[in-house]
Amino acid sequence: MKPYIHIVNYYECDSMGITHHSNYIRFMEEARVDWMDKIGFGFDRVEAEGVVSPVLSLSCNYLHTTTFKDTIVIKVRVEKMTNLKITFAYTMTHNDRIVCTAQSTHCFLENNRPISIERRFPQLYKAICTQIEQDNED
Amino acid sequence: MKPYIHIVNYYECDSMGITHHSNYIRFMEEARVDWMDKIGFGFDRVEAEGVVSPVLSLSCNYLHTTTFKDTIVIKVRVEKMTNLKITFAYTMTHNDRIVCTAQSTHCFLENNRPISIERRFPQLYKAICTQIEQDNED
Amino acid sequence: MKPYIHIVNYYECDSMGITHHSNYIRFMEEARVDWMDKIGFGFDRVEAEGVVSPVLSLSCNYLHTTTFKDTIVIKVRVEKMTNLKITFAYTMTHNDRIVCTAQSTHCFLENNRPISIERRFPQLYKAICTQIEQDNED
Amino acid sequence: MKPYIHIVNYYECDSMGITHHSNYIRFMEEARVDWMDKIGFGFDRVEAEGVVSPVLSLSCNYLHTTTFKDTIVIKVRVEKMTNLKITFAYTMTHNDRIVCTAQSTHCFLENNRPISIERRFPQLYKAICTQIEQDNED
Repeated sequence: MKPYIHIVNYYECDSMGITHHSNYIRFMEEARVDWMDKIGFGFDRVEAEGVVSPVLSLSCNYLHTTTFKDTIVIKVRVEKMTNLKITFAYTMTHNDRIVCTAQSTHCFLENNRPISIERRFPQLYKAICTQIEQDNED
Repeated sequence: MKPYIHIVNYYECDSMGITHHSNYIRFMEEARVDWMDKIGFGFDRVEAEGVVSPVLSLSCNYLHTTTFKDTIVIKVRVEKMTNLKITFAYTMTHNDRIVCTAQSTHCFLENNRPISIERRFPQLYKAICTQIEQDNED
Repeated sequence: MKPYIHIVNYYECDSMGITHHSNYIRFMEEARVDWMDKIGFGFDRVEAEGVVSPVLSLSCNYLHTTTFKDTIVIKVRVEKMTNLKITFAYTMTHNDRIVCTAQSTHCFLENNRPISIERRFPQLYKAICTQIEQDNED
Repeated sequence: MKPYIHIVNYYECDSMGITHHSNYIRFMEEARVDWMDKIGFGFDRVEAEGVVSPVLSLSCNYLHTTTFKDTIVIKVRVEKMTNLKITFAYTMTHNDRIVCTAQSTHCFLENNRPISIERRFPQLYKAICTQIEQDNED
């Protein structure tokens, strides 16, 4: 699967002249949304069915700084999926150097209650499983 | 009415070391929300009734820059109110010097259709009229 | 000149489910940066010479709302250029419908003093003049 | 030490009607800046000496959602300090319920090289040590 590309905007840089660390959390979301589009079950489709997918936890390691106009290449893969939760891992590179690694865990809620991805969205669940297998083969 | 205070956050400053111009638009929203709270009819109450209030237009003049930790004092007053629209004017000062003046115009929508503020929220309408009179006296 | 494309991110939408109005100010910056790249004198080059270009004023008319994943096409043209100031005009469309029109005026500062674009960056000045002529022909 | 207070702004909420998860990272920064002010050695003073303090890593657990106008009370304490790094722990509550716990680790850089907090800012180092002792007594 093709990685997601984010080119750093001027307004994403702080007084140090570097990409503000909070923005990487947003790049993670962009890359995750793109990943779901690419496996064929966009996040807008999930939301259209009245299901939301809040973030339960995340972590982020900042290895090198980036700045205005830098091209950040973001690889996403599923680290773990249970019936109720899914954990994504992100590797962000700039000029082939890893600048940031991160993880985020999510659940799916309908009427404020956690739902089983497998039962509620079997097609999405299968697509994710297939993608996990493909990632493992690589 | 007491003006609204915003102290500039680190993440609101850009590579030039100044408050990024887009953030003043957010300070305007903060000040507007605070203004509605102070006249006794908070924006959350409007939203709780299923009414939203999108921005129709805005303008902003940046007279002096501000930076991290600067205290911005924001005075809000109603410039104009018709049955369907309301225009706010903002004067932002730092150390008694005007740093930014701005305007924003809003309508109120219910089920995607414009509604009359006076008919839908008579209490809010009256409170705004009273406030306009008080501002004119000052 | 090809217009700039911004696809609305999830984090750019607010509780109303629409693109928050403050974000259009950021899209304007993205489009302006892209425009300068396309005329061959990127904003990073200006900054590399120790010159900054703060926003003096802006205005924005919101004609239709946009939301998550909407493709916003942004056309930029120079509305006016004097020796010290430049005004850009932006037309943003979604599905060929104008959703937002906007303007922003900028100056160029070196050591906190306004500078003449024509004298300081003759190459940039010429490129802008050429672009203005081309836009007028279209 | 008095905790830091952040009241959620309208523009900080997303389409789910909840505070967007990326904003908590910014609240952490606000609380950290406030904490340094309160121990008497503000972050602006560090920056004024040409020293920057980038984030090396962070983690965040989202336990409950918050929304527009919610008052988030943020307690900061130093989890660990070595000569080169400092780790803060954050506990965020709303109505006495923990909504988010988080950690962030920082270093201090001068001319792009890590510096010893103790040697470069002995007064800051002492103030932090004193605060750690006080926190341990509580």
